[in-house]
Amino acid sequence: MRKFVSCIFMVLGGCLLSFAQHPSLLFTQEEVSEIRAGKGMVPEFDKSLSEVLSAADAAVNSSISVPVPIDGGGGAVHEQHKSNYYAMFHCGVAYQLTGDKKYATYVANMLQAYAKLYPTLGFHPLQLSPVPGRLFWQTLNESVWLVHTAVAYDCIYNTLSSKQRATIEENLFVPMADFIMDGMGDNHANKKTFNKMHNHATWATAAVGMIGFAMNREDYVKKALYGSDETGKRGGFIRQMDYLFSPDGYFTEGAYYQRYAIWPFVIFAQCIDNKLPELKIFDYRDNILSKALSTLIQLSYEGEFFHINDALLKGLSAQELVYAVDILYNMNPSDKSLLSVADKYQHTYLPIIGGFKVARDIARGEAAPIVYRSSLFRDGRKGDEGGIGVIRSTASGLNSALTLKATSHGLSHGHFDKLTMAYYDNGNEILTDYGASRFLNIEAKYKGHYTRENQSFAKQTIAHNTLVVDETSNFGGDIKVSSRYHSDIIYHDFNGGHFQVVVAKDANAYPGVEMKRTLAYVTTPFLQFPLILDVLQANADREHQYDYPLWYNGHFVSLNFPYTKAGNELRTLGTKNGYQHLWLEAWGQNESKNTSCFTFVNKNRFYTVSTATTPQTEIKMLRLGANDPDFNLRNETAFLIREKARKNHTFATSIETHGDYDVVMETSNNLVSSCEEVKVLMDTASYTVVKAIYKGGHFVLLCLSNTDNSKEKKHNLTIDGLDYTWNGRCGVFIR
Amino acid sequence: MRKFVSCIFMVLGGCLLSFAQHPSLLFTQEEVSEIRAGKGMVPEFDKSLSEVLSAADAAVNSSISVPVPIDGGGGAVHEQHKSNYYAMFHCGVAYQLTGDKKYATYVANMLQAYAKLYPTLGFHPLQLSPVPGRLFWQTLNESVWLVHTAVAYDCIYNTLSSKQRATIEENLFVPMADFIMDGMGDNHANKKTFNKMHNHATWATAAVGMIGFAMNREDYVKKALYGSDETGKRGGFIRQMDYLFSPDGYFTEGAYYQRYAIWPFVIFAQCIDNKLPELKIFDYRDNILSKALSTLIQLSYEGEFFHINDALLKGLSAQELVYAVDILYNMNPSDKSLLSVADKYQHTYLPIIGGFKVARDIARGEAAPIVYRSSLFRDGRKGDEGGIGVIRSTASGLNSALTLKATSHGLSHGHFDKLTMAYYDNGNEILTDYGASRFLNIEAKYKGHYTRENQSFAKQTIAHNTLVVDETSNFGGDIKVSSRYHSDIIYHDFNGGHFQVVVAKDANAYPGVEMKRTLAYVTTPFLQFPLILDVLQANADREHQYDYPLWYNGHFVSLNFPYTKAGNELRTLGTKNGYQHLWLEAWGQNESKNTSCFTFVNKNRFYTVSTATTPQTEIKMLRLGANDPDFNLRNETAFLIREKARKNHTFATSIETHGDYDVVMETSNNLVSSCEEVKVLMDTASYTVVKAIYKGGHFVLLCLSNTDNSKEKKHNLTIDGLDYTWNGRCGVFIR
Repeated sequence: MRKFVSCIFMVLGGCLLSFAQHPSLLFTQEEVSEIRAGKGMVPEFDKSLSEVLSAADAAVNSSISVPVPIDGGGGAVHEQHKSNYYAMFHCGVAYQLTGDKKYATYVANMLQAYAKLYPTLGFHPLQLSPVPGRLFWQTLNESVWLVHTAVAYDCIYNTLSSKQRATIEENLFVPMADFIMDGMGDNHANKKTFNKMHNHATWATAAVGMIGFAMNREDYVKKALYGSDETGKRGGFIRQMDYLFSPDGYFTEGAYYQRYAIWPFVIFAQCIDNKLPELKIFDYRDNILSKALSTLIQLSYEGEFFHINDALLKGLSAQELVYAVDILYNMNPSDKSLLSVADKYQHTYLPIIGGFKVARDIARGEAAPIVYRSSLFRDGRKGDEGGIGVIRSTASGLNSALTLKATSHGLSHGHFDKLTMAYYDNGNEILTDYGASRFLNIEAKYKGHYTRENQSFAKQTIAHNTLVVDETSNFGGDIKVSSRYHSDIIYHDFNGGHFQVVVAKDANAYPGVEMKRTLAYVTTPFLQFPLILDVLQANADREHQYDYPLWYNGHFVSLNFPYTKAGNELRTLGTKNGYQHLWLEAWGQNESKNTSCFTFVNKNRFYTVSTATTPQTEIKMLRLGANDPDFNLRNETAFLIREKARKNHTFATSIETHGDYDVVMETSNNLVSSCEEVKVLMDTASYTVVKAIYKGGHFVLLCLSNTDNSKEKKHNLTIDGLDYTWNGRCGVFIR
Repeated sequence: MRKFVSCIFMVLGGCLLSFAQHPSLLFTQEEVSEIRAGKGMVPEFDKSLSEVLSAADAAVNSSISVPVPIDGGGGAVHEQHKSNYYAMFHCGVAYQLTGDKKYATYVANMLQAYAKLYPTLGFHPLQLSPVPGRLFWQTLNESVWLVHTAVAYDCIYNTLSSKQRATIEENLFVPMADFIMDGMGDNHANKKTFNKMHNHATWATAAVGMIGFAMNREDYVKKALYGSDETGKRGGFIRQMDYLFSPDGYFTEGAYYQRYAIWPFVIFAQCIDNKLPELKIFDYRDNILSKALSTLIQLSYEGEFFHINDALLKGLSAQELVYAVDILYNMNPSDKSLLSVADKYQHTYLPIIGGFKVARDIARGEAAPIVYRSSLFRDGRKGDEGGIGVIRSTASGLNSALTLKATSHGLSHGHFDKLTMAYYDNGNEILTDYGASRFLNIEAKYKGHYTRENQSFAKQTIAHNTLVVDETSNFGGDIKVSSRYHSDIIYHDFNGGHFQVVVAKDANAYPGVEMKRTLAYVTTPFLQFPLILDVLQANADREHQYDYPLWYNGHFVSLNFPYTKAGNELRTLGTKNGYQHLWLEAWGQNESKNTSCFTFVNKNRFYTVSTATTPQTEIKMLRLGANDPDFNLRNETAFLIREKARKNHTFATSIETHGDYDVVMETSNNLVSSCEEVKVLMDTASYTVVKAIYKGGHFVLLCLSNTDNSKEKKHNLTIDGLDYTWNGRCGVFIR
């Protein structure tokens, strides 16, 4: 790190002063010429450009409004300042693309209006944020404003007189950059944020660095890159690239927030690459930004991000991903799968050289399929704070993803979801993760913020497909405690022929309880689709109640034992930790068989969950929605298996995907599960063996070493009089 | 009718005997040549042909199995006989298309096997149907078998020796046709069915007529066309064309069953047209079969049939519609919108000349858009038994449909749904009709039959968006009584510039209560989308409780008054007539305003229902699912307004569609309803006036004459000191 820093300083000294040409932030003069020359050649790119020009035209045809700040997000003045930076951005770009001065004049006039207003502003009057802005209620928005405006300023720089520049820089950009870096008066919260390892700091450093480039202010660029003290030891953009992603490009809050976090990274990196190419910023940390994008793509299903933590329904079509795809493809055009991401999910291109090349190369037919690979994404800066395992179907015609989450808490957007799993199949989310309870931008729903039920339900352990001990959440639902620990992916094998497997462990979420979960994805010759075997083990020093919930998306088809359904009256399953939100719709105990089977249907396919149970096992069908006074919760359904007064218990489950159902053609096939029985044949400190038996005398035997994670280690067991030998923690035998 | 009949008899005498060529049922030799010559020219058609050939190859490569009947629908033997007729059909067609004898031999061998089996059969052993078959548990399936097999026999006729033909005809086709026409032994239920005006009789006459054509048996053809007595006065296919459709081509059970009913009509008509072209069967009754197809298309939204009566999720992609589109396009190639139906929803083509032409003309780019028009579809043979009104959005960029149902009961698949409405918008069903409670072909769900809840909920009045009096269903839920009456569409105007309107009336569903409903679809300059005004009037001779439920598809956003939501305990709203299935989720009374507003969101759009209420009005939020022991009901939600102890009441409601919501772009606009107030300004025997007031001082005034349906009649009222003059029953004024 030290060596790198001093090397950069030398570079800085040489280049900023000598190459003060414009534009040079998001594009260079040569790139503008290339884009202009390409006009008419790539219709899809032309469409995106014409959208930018339409937006710019709409701006220049309306009057300039730079009102005194008064309100927060969603308020008219707030939205006006937001729309102003988009207008300047569009007009700046439009000027470069057309050469039409009217666009430049518009930006110049608006900047001069801001230069008049800004010096008159103290802190924002709303006083709602611990890091208040001046134009906006929080400094974060001010940074976003400056990122966009720096681009506009760079675009029209050469049209301004030196007097105009002086006015704008001295009254607007310099004080704003200083404010973002240092705060104002007695309030230096901004300085702390600026040097944090946090995505708000990425916006702040990008803003200061980009306006620094545009004004040719080397000091700003240095502070943006290396923190206020310019050492790179405490803050700055370079250090953020070290700290905010794991070595696998995973951001601890999960894909939904990684989407937001990547935006300032790729924008500022693009500027750095244009101004300081010697930095090779895109190569930094083994191409960490490209890795982050690749990880985002891999953490999606049908273009939508997995719903872990506080996720809402967003995915590869988000504007942040358009920036990431266009900028990073330009840096590395060998990854042709990025073209498919743009073509399948985005249909819009940035008005810069990256956008042009993406659109052009799609038109040239260069797009390669997106390949989803079974992967482990490690969490933590060093990759040593657990991770998330993703198993993908490999055979053609299949479209499944199975996830096992064993990460660190994930900052303020994390959930108490240690070892939770989710299953996606056939284009649909099958075993679900609730994500966040929030109606973003819907004022009538708690002003668009996270609702109370995000805390009371969505974050709680029972909202997830994982073990709940004694009806409490992991770490007692205390984020401070949870943030001290992480789970671990202790084993994975994605290379096997007939099976893939991932194993996770947690020993901290419940004091005195060790949890292990093995998910095996097994291809058999006798089942229609690959099978999931889920072995969830709890080992404790005293007796507990263990709940194993599976949230499912589909319509109830059948249970294989008599049950009672609530008729005239529904009651809640519990009173706290999320249980107060669960209606108990039906309940029963399977007294005649040792395996309880639940079948549901989603679209044209059936899913059967079969679990080893005893006559004492309580089985419950749940529906979300109790104690939800404002109708904030979505109506979702769960299947829950409860084991009481157990020290150790192993939930052994076969999840079978089966059937073809077509109501239009009136055809159906294989709607009844093949699973006859699931048994735990052995469960010792050393080994756990699960046998799942299917029609026609077939079975799958899953043999787990409970102690040894070596892939080479040879194990041998005699089961039902037969010898089974395998290497590694997990052996899967199919008969 | 008489004249027509005798004319046909002459025709029959002349042609059947002289033109006994083969094939001549679904296609002629010339058409086969045309299809063969077209090979390679229309890739989409070639694809469909190769599917037929694959099916035929699969058949000839497996052994022939003609088992003794033993089981019902879904059973192995039943499914074998079903798959046998498809196999023979495919092989017959394959023989004609390729000339490869192996296909003909397969059909011949299977027919000979059936000719051995059939004489040994008495009635089907299952004895489940009042009209039992011999091969199948009901004669209906036997007719369907014969329709397909007649085509196969026609295709391979010329490959058989006269001895083979004699064996097959004498032992199989003749006894089967006789059985379908007359029954067997003492059981003549089939004879009654054969002469009924019912879609089972259409299958029976098609079967007998088609095998009659194939065997050159004029007597069978005559009976098929004109009934057992050959007079055309009591039964037969021609009379079915008179009786089973209204003059508008509407079938009383609704679109879902009309789809099933049209199949034998178009198949047999195609054969008649080939064998007896002088009959001009497709011109009959002013092209009633083309009208029936057009009506089916108009009774759909986004390719799916409206969910009235016992509907499941089917639509224009159903195989019956493939037959109808291909055969009727061949008859009238000027309707180029049929090509769009095939291209957008079907992607498969019949292996006959119609299928070839549809595929070819699509490839030639001849498809014209499907135009959905506001229409009234009259019910009843003479068109005098009510009807269903459909209002479609007319402006470009809109995609809405609003339906008002005021038909006769609709036979055994009808619901107690007088004056129910449904609303489709933006590609989604918004105000919904439950349709049927049935999991077709899912054995685990009540063997795939209609579930108990179809009777206890789906058919009941409360399951629909219409008036419920005293918590009872129309006609006390008695189908025999309901079948005696029909509602009426008493007025409609789809021509107006700024509004379309339809008005329905019913005076029989609740003794002593007259109901009228006016749906106006109004385009204003101040609202984002067209507005629906719903005026539902009840006038009675004594006091009643009036419930006005709206089943909605979306997530609750807000109510404009304080309400109580059930927290720890849910109870049902009632105990019978469908109310026992409703969980009461929330309730309240709007004590401070005279208009109660409910907003929900569906995908990216918002919907606000605003109704004139008093502090005494009870408002309830409902969720389906109580007293449903087998999880048969879908989880749906309703908003209910209850007025107690009223003789007369007018429910006046504004249904506003508004908003743009994009969670990915994080943009939102117009999410709050503009509606400020809905008032009933006048409600006399002569006139009802509703004023709906919107933001910005705007309002819509709906003036209704309660007595006069003349479109020319001029009306004048003074409201709030202003004069309003209009012609016709409904005047709509926008300010």
